[in-house]
Amino acid sequence: MSSLTQTRDYNFNAGPSALPIEVLTEVQDELLNYKDSGKSIIESSHRSKEYEEVHFETLNNLTTLLDCKDSHSLILMNGGARMQFALVPMNLVREGQIAEYIVTGTWAKGAYDEACKIPGIETNAVWSGVEDNFNRIPNPDEYSVNNKAAYLHYASNNTIFGTQFHTPPESGDIPLVADMSSDILCRPMDISNHSLIYAGAQKNLGPAGLSVVAIRNDHLESCPGNLTSAFDYKVLQAKDSLLYTPNCFAIYVVGLVTRKIIEMGGLEEIQKINNAKAKLIYDTIDNSGGYYKGTCTKESRSIMNVTINLQSEELEKKFVTESIGAGFSGLKGHRSVGGIRASTYNSVPLESVEALVSFMNEFQASNG
Amino acid sequence: MSSLTQTRDYNFNAGPSALPIEVLTEVQDELLNYKDSGKSIIESSHRSKEYEEVHFETLNNLTTLLDCKDSHSLILMNGGARMQFALVPMNLVREGQIAEYIVTGTWAKGAYDEACKIPGIETNAVWSGVEDNFNRIPNPDEYSVNNKAAYLHYASNNTIFGTQFHTPPESGDIPLVADMSSDILCRPMDISNHSLIYAGAQKNLGPAGLSVVAIRNDHLESCPGNLTSAFDYKVLQAKDSLLYTPNCFAIYVVGLVTRKIIEMGGLEEIQKINNAKAKLIYDTIDNSGGYYKGTCTKESRSIMNVTINLQSEELEKKFVTESIGAGFSGLKGHRSVGGIRASTYNSVPLESVEALVSFMNEFQASNG
Repeated sequence: MSSLTQTRDYNFNAGPSALPIEVLTEVQDELLNYKDSGKSIIESSHRSKEYEEVHFETLNNLTTLLDCKDSHSLILMNGGARMQFALVPMNLVREGQIAEYIVTGTWAKGAYDEACKIPGIETNAVWSGVEDNFNRIPNPDEYSVNNKAAYLHYASNNTIFGTQFHTPPESGDIPLVADMSSDILCRPMDISNHSLIYAGAQKNLGPAGLSVVAIRNDHLESCPGNLTSAFDYKVLQAKDSLLYTPNCFAIYVVGLVTRKIIEMGGLEEIQKINNAKAKLIYDTIDNSGGYYKGTCTKESRSIMNVTINLQSEELEKKFVTESIGAGFSGLKGHRSVGGIRASTYNSVPLESVEALVSFMNEFQASNG
Repeated sequence: MSSLTQTRDYNFNAGPSALPIEVLTEVQDELLNYKDSGKSIIESSHRSKEYEEVHFETLNNLTTLLDCKDSHSLILMNGGARMQFALVPMNLVREGQIAEYIVTGTWAKGAYDEACKIPGIETNAVWSGVEDNFNRIPNPDEYSVNNKAAYLHYASNNTIFGTQFHTPPESGDIPLVADMSSDILCRPMDISNHSLIYAGAQKNLGPAGLSVVAIRNDHLESCPGNLTSAFDYKVLQAKDSLLYTPNCFAIYVVGLVTRKIIEMGGLEEIQKINNAKAKLIYDTIDNSGGYYKGTCTKESRSIMNVTINLQSEELEKKFVTESIGAGFSGLKGHRSVGGIRASTYNSVPLESVEALVSFMNEFQASNG
């Protein structure tokens, strides 16, 4: 282990979260003079040749990894998923249509609640897991989609409750819309039956303050295109996401992160590593004799966020405190639910997870 | 001159634009391990102690420099000025009121045009400089403000046409709203009679993808507070600009830039340097015997963006090409108007301007 890695935490933050050390090192190396341009990339005009190369590489890398070159258009937008909660219904719902939502967690509910605030938009939650404290993903026979729905919206992964859709929900002829903020590019994904997917960048992609949108070309075509321009997918896409000054730095880092994924073999490789990381922690839970308890049903477990309870809040607090002393960060569960949470996004290395399961085993041995 | 400065351009970009070398060096130094936290600031949770210190320092520095502690509340928002073009009328205009605009340039017109797209908002342009190609700032006797106006909006500086309000417009009892994207903190400013000011960060403050809003407390109180939350000043301010994951990196850099301004003596000092930089270029224009021509009236000249014409487009093209060879960047005028533009924002050092006027004199001598 190099001295550099020794000074860096095992970072399990839920977002903003870990980035690959190779990416951070590249950013650092070229921060004062980007590729002999005489300036930092954050000092470069968004109309400059240097920045345009960065911008279109990021768009291309995302298109490649989402495998949607012929079906969807990519848009890079300032702001995160919370803004998309509003922009999706504003852009996609037509007169006489309903915006429908599956509510599997806090952010899925957030998307629904924000849509309800948009004047003139009729909304409906087709299923909610709130009474089970969002501990599972529903089966398709538990909800039905109105044939007047503009889309069925779901959050593909629920960061707070540690659940994940392992296949997209079934919605018949109604197109899907997915908030993929916390699991985009975690595995090969077929978005062909999605009208739109979106993701805040700060979990699996890069720094915060950027969202990635992929919108199906035929649905982009039928967007009204008359919204105020910062909110209008049609206008932004027509300008290649350069209508306004974009979050250049985040786009640059996302370009480096996605380039690295492509170079390492793409999403099949990423999935293998993510599955291995999640399995290590879930096996530790399942082999703990009930000392560690998963918070959700096994079928719904997320490979991105592993949520864990111990026997008492006191013990959970001790676990978090000692983990910090042992060089871990971000293991405290979301403030709304408590417990322990390990976010194992794409850029969290396997060695961090190996260190975590060692720590879990030692903690159990000392506090059993 | 150090070897580092020799490899860096004289950066006159109109935005994103130059940053202080001391700030870039600090960002670089701590990019892999922010203040021994074991992670980069861009890998830190926005709920972490490290990030919260950054966040509140930035808010506090801006409040100090805008001298508005008792009158206005600061909000840090994802997205730039173009989003504010929509959010300002959405938040500030009440039933029966009109949103009024002074149109002194492309972005001032942009703000007006975007307001016109908001359903249910009545708008009015009280003055437009379009027929004079936006070459001046109007006198107060050239426009009148409706007593039903919610506000009078103006762009305090016009990047494309090189004009600037040297005192705010007169609006009687109607509060002002200012887009200060290209001159915020360029000089001491009294914003007490402003309902709201806003600025995209990427010119005078830091990286792109962030906007700073200062809203007068009594006007914040009377905002409806029922918009979708990413658009709602009242909701965002109540959560200390941490409702959603903010553009942490940009906020961190803006914190360093504003700290540096405070340490060097505040806005009085900045103004002296900015005036000196602008005077050097304007004197070179005025002493060139008509070789260089300013594009606007002398009374309206900006100390942030100096716009210049030469005798012919051919000569302007030669000037730009040779300037790049001589280590300058960003001197080409905006693509909509052509010519030459030197953006002399806060972080452009005096030595860059000294190099520019030498280059201008040499160019004239060789191409007179």
